[in-house]
Amino acid sequence: MPELHGVGVGRGTATGPVLRMAEPLGEPDSSPLQGDAASAKASVGEALAAVAADLGKRGQAAGGDAQAVLEAQALMAQDPSILDDVHRQIDEGTNPERAVFTAFKSFQDVLAGMGGYMGERAADLGDVAQRIIAQLRGVHAPGVPESDTPFILVARDLAPADTALLDLDKVLALVTRDGGPTSHTAILARAKGITAIVGVSSADELSDGQVVIVDAAAGAVVTDPTDEQVAEAEKKRAERLAAADAPLTAGALADGTAVPLLANLGSPKDAANAVELGAEGVGLFRTEFLFLDSPYAPDVATQKASYKALLEAFPGKKVVVRALDAGADKPLPFLTDSGEENPALGRRGLRALRHHPEILRDQLTALAEADAETEADLWVMAPMVADVEETEYFVSLAKELGIKTAGVMAEVPSVALLAEQVIAAADFVSIGTNDLTQYTMAADRMLGTVASYQDPWHPAVLRLVAQLGAAGATAHKGVGICGEAASDPMLAVVLVGLGATTLSMTPAALADVRAELKNHTLDQAKALAAAAVAAPSAAAAREAVARASAAS
Amino acid sequence: MPELHGVGVGRGTATGPVLRMAEPLGEPDSSPLQGDAASAKASVGEALAAVAADLGKRGQAAGGDAQAVLEAQALMAQDPSILDDVHRQIDEGTNPERAVFTAFKSFQDVLAGMGGYMGERAADLGDVAQRIIAQLRGVHAPGVPESDTPFILVARDLAPADTALLDLDKVLALVTRDGGPTSHTAILARAKGITAIVGVSSADELSDGQVVIVDAAAGAVVTDPTDEQVAEAEKKRAERLAAADAPLTAGALADGTAVPLLANLGSPKDAANAVELGAEGVGLFRTEFLFLDSPYAPDVATQKASYKALLEAFPGKKVVVRALDAGADKPLPFLTDSGEENPALGRRGLRALRHHPEILRDQLTALAEADAETEADLWVMAPMVADVEETEYFVSLAKELGIKTAGVMAEVPSVALLAEQVIAAADFVSIGTNDLTQYTMAADRMLGTVASYQDPWHPAVLRLVAQLGAAGATAHKGVGICGEAASDPMLAVVLVGLGATTLSMTPAALADVRAELKNHTLDQAKALAAAAVAAPSAAAAREAVARASAAS
Repeated sequence: MPELHGVGVGRGTATGPVLRMAEPLGEPDSSPLQGDAASAKASVGEALAAVAADLGKRGQAAGGDAQAVLEAQALMAQDPSILDDVHRQIDEGTNPERAVFTAFKSFQDVLAGMGGYMGERAADLGDVAQRIIAQLRGVHAPGVPESDTPFILVARDLAPADTALLDLDKVLALVTRDGGPTSHTAILARAKGITAIVGVSSADELSDGQVVIVDAAAGAVVTDPTDEQVAEAEKKRAERLAAADAPLTAGALADGTAVPLLANLGSPKDAANAVELGAEGVGLFRTEFLFLDSPYAPDVATQKASYKALLEAFPGKKVVVRALDAGADKPLPFLTDSGEENPALGRRGLRALRHHPEILRDQLTALAEADAETEADLWVMAPMVADVEETEYFVSLAKELGIKTAGVMAEVPSVALLAEQVIAAADFVSIGTNDLTQYTMAADRMLGTVASYQDPWHPAVLRLVAQLGAAGATAHKGVGICGEAASDPMLAVVLVGLGATTLSMTPAALADVRAELKNHTLDQAKALAAAAVAAPSAAAAREAVARASAAS
Repeated sequence: MPELHGVGVGRGTATGPVLRMAEPLGEPDSSPLQGDAASAKASVGEALAAVAADLGKRGQAAGGDAQAVLEAQALMAQDPSILDDVHRQIDEGTNPERAVFTAFKSFQDVLAGMGGYMGERAADLGDVAQRIIAQLRGVHAPGVPESDTPFILVARDLAPADTALLDLDKVLALVTRDGGPTSHTAILARAKGITAIVGVSSADELSDGQVVIVDAAAGAVVTDPTDEQVAEAEKKRAERLAAADAPLTAGALADGTAVPLLANLGSPKDAANAVELGAEGVGLFRTEFLFLDSPYAPDVATQKASYKALLEAFPGKKVVVRALDAGADKPLPFLTDSGEENPALGRRGLRALRHHPEILRDQLTALAEADAETEADLWVMAPMVADVEETEYFVSLAKELGIKTAGVMAEVPSVALLAEQVIAAADFVSIGTNDLTQYTMAADRMLGTVASYQDPWHPAVLRLVAQLGAAGATAHKGVGICGEAASDPMLAVVLVGLGATTLSMTPAALADVRAELKNHTLDQAKALAAAAVAAPSAAAAREAVARASAAS
């Protein structure tokens, strides 16, 4: 009955056997070749063929984009230049694992040096090398395990490449040792509605086949559960499924205070699903999809068609569109600078648009034209705004080009610190808790070694939210939340207590948040918020709120 | 009599002729070769030889580290593989400038792909290519100009490589178009006591030979000055020189409020100069010099000897030592991770030390032992602290190892936002305004394209300083300033008004700050601080303070 603890994502419960993701293989040693070169070459040849065949088979099973990636990897496994290099090294007396490692590594370095698309392929090549070395060693290849029966996946962390290959029908829940509430794993789990607990520091204790209960709401992994515990978990699971089928009421607190629940969307084709799950509009529409994978910005007509498709899905409802947020982890060759030492602190978001104002003008023009021909209530906001002057620049340009409601994202700490002046210059603000946390804690939200800092429960972050909430209330302007924080049901209540007027999230999270809001009045939410901001750490804030909530 | 405006560094005044730094050459066009290949090759050969000879000559003149860099560049200019590539391209019909550009570029890319030391050499190779192309075009090579008579250097911005070659005896003042108050140029100017104005947006209007007055206190470049203006500037200059010779009194406001003025030092050998300039102790002793250029951390005895040399220079005085601050732009192979996407947001400072606690323990042990054998008042602080838990970790470890006074740097916004709790857990805090500004504004302080954000006058930054100052006053604990902000005389007054109890700066700035503090009472400083935090931007804060100061 012992429990391991971590940060739960959402509210799910799952019971099942553990299946661990195999760890990366160490770098092969450089011990000399044992036996003769010919048989070493033959074993490498067999391993290459086996890996290529496996990748090809997995590609066919996966289909779509994943198939293209896997088939490209199958070709890499049989690249004749790499094979020549392996043979040459074996002839010089290197052991086969080392020869494979070194040969792939030198090609990886060349690719990495090229940067851009080719640079990204370096990781794929590394993955192929790992598979071949695993084959030579006769061990499981690193990465996502395969199973014919459902399982609870336990891993140190999941890379995007791992999750792309995840068979979601088989994964009952995810448990990771590393990563915080905004890690890639947590975001995936939230988007797909998978039960998950991240940052379980003792996750390495879990072993294959062990049956556990994963209780995301409690942030607990129960090992060796009793029959009663399993029955209780199954009951919780059934209740939650029933709640998800509850009528799609508008978001509101127990006392009836309205808290509109909106969706974060990345493409117009996601709109139908959001409506189905009860989204009362869109709180964050990311426009990057129109610009990525393109050598230049699309023209006004192309953009307008896409925006119209979005707006037509939400007649009479609010739709908040974010202007192109390029840079940092989303570089665009025609807009952002490659080679920045710290792209997250570079010329990104509005800074980049201001350097290429024609791109911003085209986007705002397309949005205004789409708005004029549809029935949605369009709001437009700028990403990565740092202060009052930038707010004034964006709002006045947007108005000039026909946008009726213009605001800014609050994700740079300075904007929250000057909340009253920024809000005076804008029609609304929307808090991007992911970046706001990253900058407030000065910790890269994509970097595993500092993942523990990336926690929007941190009272430093909550105090900035409180400043924005108070300024919004005084000015009678909207202060939305569109970061991952809004999809954590208990944190969502705290954010409302701090003054958030709308919550926007991945649509799969709407049901849990809707249900939790109904458990608290506005006064109670404010009391929970006060407990959270007074805490000295994120963990203490979580505990203080859990305690205060249980007591009320 | 027109004036150009920018951000003045320090208080100096200078009059003299402009000399512009030549701009980087554009990328040569790919027009076909004119004339025959043989003569094109001959002209390239001559240019290579001339550039190599010039670099060698400049190396001899410079001596020291600069000589090694320049001689390596001279060798690069004559690299036979590069020359082969140039000849091959000329034979294929490429014009010589383009051939040189492309050949060097491909070698640059290879070096850049190697990363590390070799990667850094890519820029040197680029510089050599620029010199050769300039020679082929018959124009000035980009970079620092040379002159036998004193001049006012006007540039877009100065790179570290430029300033290393600067003949400081000839430079009357620096004027740059780009860069903010913590740009490399501003830091150099402050450290060397050179009159400078940075961020002069219309600096491109200044032309070679034009006589101008540079008035750093006013942030103004006066073009075509009248004789009266020149006489006035000379008078100011003489007065400032006289003030620098004034008795070295302790730092204090007009009403006698003590504001100890301390020095930022990077090595024990800088101590004597700081004492001579009236430093009342050391507010920031950087310990990186002991660890850089070394494959491992020095042992306790080695460190202790160095710390003793420092402490012996300040008997009875306060000396604040910062624990090793590696990472970001100061990577150390045995301590920090290479390959972080955003090293400024990575595992740096205390985060890295905590991952290698033996290095931190050795450093604290060496400091405690040095303290026991000397008479200075040693305070030790941790860099890059993000919250209460990290503060508790560092302070308790330091105390355990014999440090009497232990505190933390405030450079991550979260520490300022939780000021009262952090200060409760520490003996003191010291505000690193450079990093605090970088993170608050989410703008890389080393990146030219976002240099305008790096301004410690920004009210968002000042509001965080105010929170720390207020918490320090309540807890009766010291709140020092050790970032570049403290060396801006008027900002120093504002910082004292916000609650700073000590100011630490590059020793060359002590005289100007000492003089300015004497012009204001504590009440006046508080009024100036209130004007600054209420402003909507850094520029508005500067203006508001200048106006309020002139009126009082």
